[in-house]
Amino acid sequence: MCHVVNKIFFFLVIIGVPLSVAGSLLHWSQTLMFIVYCLTIISLAAFMGRATESLAVISGPRIGGLLNATFGNAVELIISIFALREGLIEIVLASLTGSVLGNLLLVAGLSFFVGGLKFKRQKFNVYDARHNSGLLMFGVIVAFVIPEVFSMGMSDAEAISLSTGISIILIILYLAALFFKLVTHRGVYQHVSDQEGGDHAHEEPEWSRKKAMLVLALSTAAVAYVSESLVHTFETVGETFGWSELFIGVIIVAIVGNAAEHASAIIMAYKNKMDVAVEIAVGSTLQVAMFVAPLLVLISLFFPVQMPLVFTLPELVTMVTAVLLTIVISNDGETNWFEGATLLAAYLIMGIGFYLL
Amino acid sequence: MCHVVNKIFFFLVIIGVPLSVAGSLLHWSQTLMFIVYCLTIISLAAFMGRATESLAVISGPRIGGLLNATFGNAVELIISIFALREGLIEIVLASLTGSVLGNLLLVAGLSFFVGGLKFKRQKFNVYDARHNSGLLMFGVIVAFVIPEVFSMGMSDAEAISLSTGISIILIILYLAALFFKLVTHRGVYQHVSDQEGGDHAHEEPEWSRKKAMLVLALSTAAVAYVSESLVHTFETVGETFGWSELFIGVIIVAIVGNAAEHASAIIMAYKNKMDVAVEIAVGSTLQVAMFVAPLLVLISLFFPVQMPLVFTLPELVTMVTAVLLTIVISNDGETNWFEGATLLAAYLIMGIGFYLL
Amino acid sequence: MCHVVNKIFFFLVIIGVPLSVAGSLLHWSQTLMFIVYCLTIISLAAFMGRATESLAVISGPRIGGLLNATFGNAVELIISIFALREGLIEIVLASLTGSVLGNLLLVAGLSFFVGGLKFKRQKFNVYDARHNSGLLMFGVIVAFVIPEVFSMGMSDAEAISLSTGISIILIILYLAALFFKLVTHRGVYQHVSDQEGGDHAHEEPEWSRKKAMLVLALSTAAVAYVSESLVHTFETVGETFGWSELFIGVIIVAIVGNAAEHASAIIMAYKNKMDVAVEIAVGSTLQVAMFVAPLLVLISLFFPVQMPLVFTLPELVTMVTAVLLTIVISNDGETNWFEGATLLAAYLIMGIGFYLL
Repeated sequence: MCHVVNKIFFFLVIIGVPLSVAGSLLHWSQTLMFIVYCLTIISLAAFMGRATESLAVISGPRIGGLLNATFGNAVELIISIFALREGLIEIVLASLTGSVLGNLLLVAGLSFFVGGLKFKRQKFNVYDARHNSGLLMFGVIVAFVIPEVFSMGMSDAEAISLSTGISIILIILYLAALFFKLVTHRGVYQHVSDQEGGDHAHEEPEWSRKKAMLVLALSTAAVAYVSESLVHTFETVGETFGWSELFIGVIIVAIVGNAAEHASAIIMAYKNKMDVAVEIAVGSTLQVAMFVAPLLVLISLFFPVQMPLVFTLPELVTMVTAVLLTIVISNDGETNWFEGATLLAAYLIMGIGFYLL
Repeated sequence: MCHVVNKIFFFLVIIGVPLSVAGSLLHWSQTLMFIVYCLTIISLAAFMGRATESLAVISGPRIGGLLNATFGNAVELIISIFALREGLIEIVLASLTGSVLGNLLLVAGLSFFVGGLKFKRQKFNVYDARHNSGLLMFGVIVAFVIPEVFSMGMSDAEAISLSTGISIILIILYLAALFFKLVTHRGVYQHVSDQEGGDHAHEEPEWSRKKAMLVLALSTAAVAYVSESLVHTFETVGETFGWSELFIGVIIVAIVGNAAEHASAIIMAYKNKMDVAVEIAVGSTLQVAMFVAPLLVLISLFFPVQMPLVFTLPELVTMVTAVLLTIVISNDGETNWFEGATLLAAYLIMGIGFYLL
Repeated sequence: MCHVVNKIFFFLVIIGVPLSVAGSLLHWSQTLMFIVYCLTIISLAAFMGRATESLAVISGPRIGGLLNATFGNAVELIISIFALREGLIEIVLASLTGSVLGNLLLVAGLSFFVGGLKFKRQKFNVYDARHNSGLLMFGVIVAFVIPEVFSMGMSDAEAISLSTGISIILIILYLAALFFKLVTHRGVYQHVSDQEGGDHAHEEPEWSRKKAMLVLALSTAAVAYVSESLVHTFETVGETFGWSELFIGVIIVAIVGNAAEHASAIIMAYKNKMDVAVEIAVGSTLQVAMFVAPLLVLISLFFPVQMPLVFTLPELVTMVTAVLLTIVISNDGETNWFEGATLLAAYLIMGIGFYLL
């Protein structure tokens, strides 16, 4: 199945990239181009994922972990930087929200649900679950709620100072979490039965180092190019479909930016590799909250319009409730189809809310 | 002891129903009639409970579970429909809040406290506790907080659309939870020691199917009649005692509507059957949040005044904190008298708050 | 090491107390005196701690527990009463907030971090952790959030009534918690391996009962005297350093008032006595939230300006998020350096917020 998917993505890239170039030069219908851009980015993201995975296998678990951590949300980072340069702060914050919600509720929900249709009870490392719960609580609830509340009584400049300080702390703690997981406590919390690190070491990389780096460089450049064009279609597309900027950011951009992760997580859950499925869903959320979001705040300092780490109230409340729900559901290191259905129902409720807003 | 209680309830019904009819026809003092109505409803609810229980035993666990789920909060549903028809949306939302608070804090609190006076440590199924925690988080925190926050920036029509969508999702997930518990995962999470399902199967029903259905039909009709009269006394009673509509709804209606459950849960805890006591308290809360409340929203679509799923801020905050407290206290599957005291103290704090408001 | 520290504190008291008297009589620079007062109070607090500890060893665990519970936050209580008499309600509420944040995030964070540098995984009694989680949820989230939200729709007099009611309930539940821990469930939840109560019984007190009571009386009197002077320097110091009253209360007063506890908790963590370290950090928080804060509300009823239990929004939100983070991190009864780092990062974020506010 994977082979077929890879071929489809290859085909989509082969025609998507030229079409993207042609379309933006010849000013084709923006709604049509929006669809072309989205499909092209999804396909390019799949290539970036495979290249990163190959490099991770070649470089060993430590550097591999770092690579995954850096390139895992590269697409989203690139789209956001272009949006930020245009001053589209609302869309960037909305797409960060969408990534958090999409990973925690849609990706994890689908994984638990699909996996649960095949297996009655699926288990994953309970220590990882608790470690992730602490980080979710910190990265989303502490680090996002504090600037929201404090900035109410602050000038814009003070709010930017606060956001900058929080962003630096978030990135340092994210790096510390990698150091903890890959260096000081590597393997400490592993069950004897699921030492996948061992298997991983003997894995064969799909591509050679050279080929992987070339693919990564080319697809990153292509994503950057297409993302810039994508950002310019938002206004027209919103008017055409009656979608608000918030809905585009929270739901559409988030699904496009995370499509590759959605697929892998569900496949892993179906193979009963719940540790990997959870790592993709929750790990990706943490990356967005503790690395991508603060990095964008810092990058925006060099742009005309600075982005504070201050979400709208609906964005903040959906993220906070999504985190609380995920913690309560995943903290026991077990899942079933109904827990997946609960997460999906929560995503649906939030989706309706953002659509109507 | 149960026999004596049953006789008292029989006696109360025998004189309560005629008195209710006479009182409303002859326009007796509304304050007096308020007390008569309340006692009559409590007694009728006990009969409905016994009839449902008999039918559940006869029909086997699956249909029995469905019956309990449907008729468990029938009294409250009936009172609320009459209040809704009168456009008393505030009282309906308040009584839903009161049911959630009453079940989570007062019923569970009294059960844990009374049971804990007799037993040092009482245990119940930890898997059920976690399953319930996830549902409480979803049913109260996600599904009630989202419309509150989103409706701030919406027109009334949009808020009703959002509430309708959320209500449909809540009811579907509630049915899915029953399907999960009674069909796909029946007995999967049971400890070997507490397979009460087995004992339950051999239980003798108190009444025959025919008698049970007759009692259920008659007492439901009587509750409906008396409830309608009760709703009309709220205004006068509020003025007489200096109670706000909010206090009547949250505290008084909730206690009347759930009196039968209060008694059973405490008796079960005193017999150290904590699984049943928790099931009554938390199960009833989930029924209110995920079935009764959304059903009322949908029913209100056919009435002149539609009810959105938007509580007042004090209602929402008390429910959210009650859920968080319950999850933290019950998640380990163990209770003692002090945990009961903590829940009761929380109820008392909220009661004072609603009284003073 | 302890001997050297004790000598430094002795030296600081010997010169600090006379300097404090001289400084306030001769009207020396308030900024200088602020530093002198702070150091003197920290040193006196160390003496009070040693005296209380000696009395606790002499009186046995029950009375000892009560003594610790009463005198543990005596310094803070004394400073607050003087501030309250001056009508400085904002500073009192801020310093209560600071105590909660300081104990939960700074003290626990440093303990987990420093202990974790030496030990890979440190464990403490998981039953205590859960018991504490329930109390934190009640004492901070229920009892502090309810008056905040309800008082919005209330007159000042009603808000004071609500605060008074909640304060009485908090103190009763705090005493019930002591009764639970020291009488009805003493030793029930102890692991066989960590019955430190047994060792404790054979401990030698540092001072005789007579000497301990004399030291306690004298140092309490001295703290009271110096605290009153300290309160009068806040305004000038704030202007000099550009600190807001909120920052002084939340960060400075809290650090001065809890310095002794900080030191003990970290030493205990470094000795791998995590049960004691957690007891100091979380136990102290509970004492502040459930005993000191409500007691101050009740005492303020006799002063010209009454203090409601209504914090500012930033204060409330930081406390709520700190409690949620602590519960998620400590609920498994295990710590490591990274969990400590997470708590410290949260403290830092909040500190920046209060500084900029």
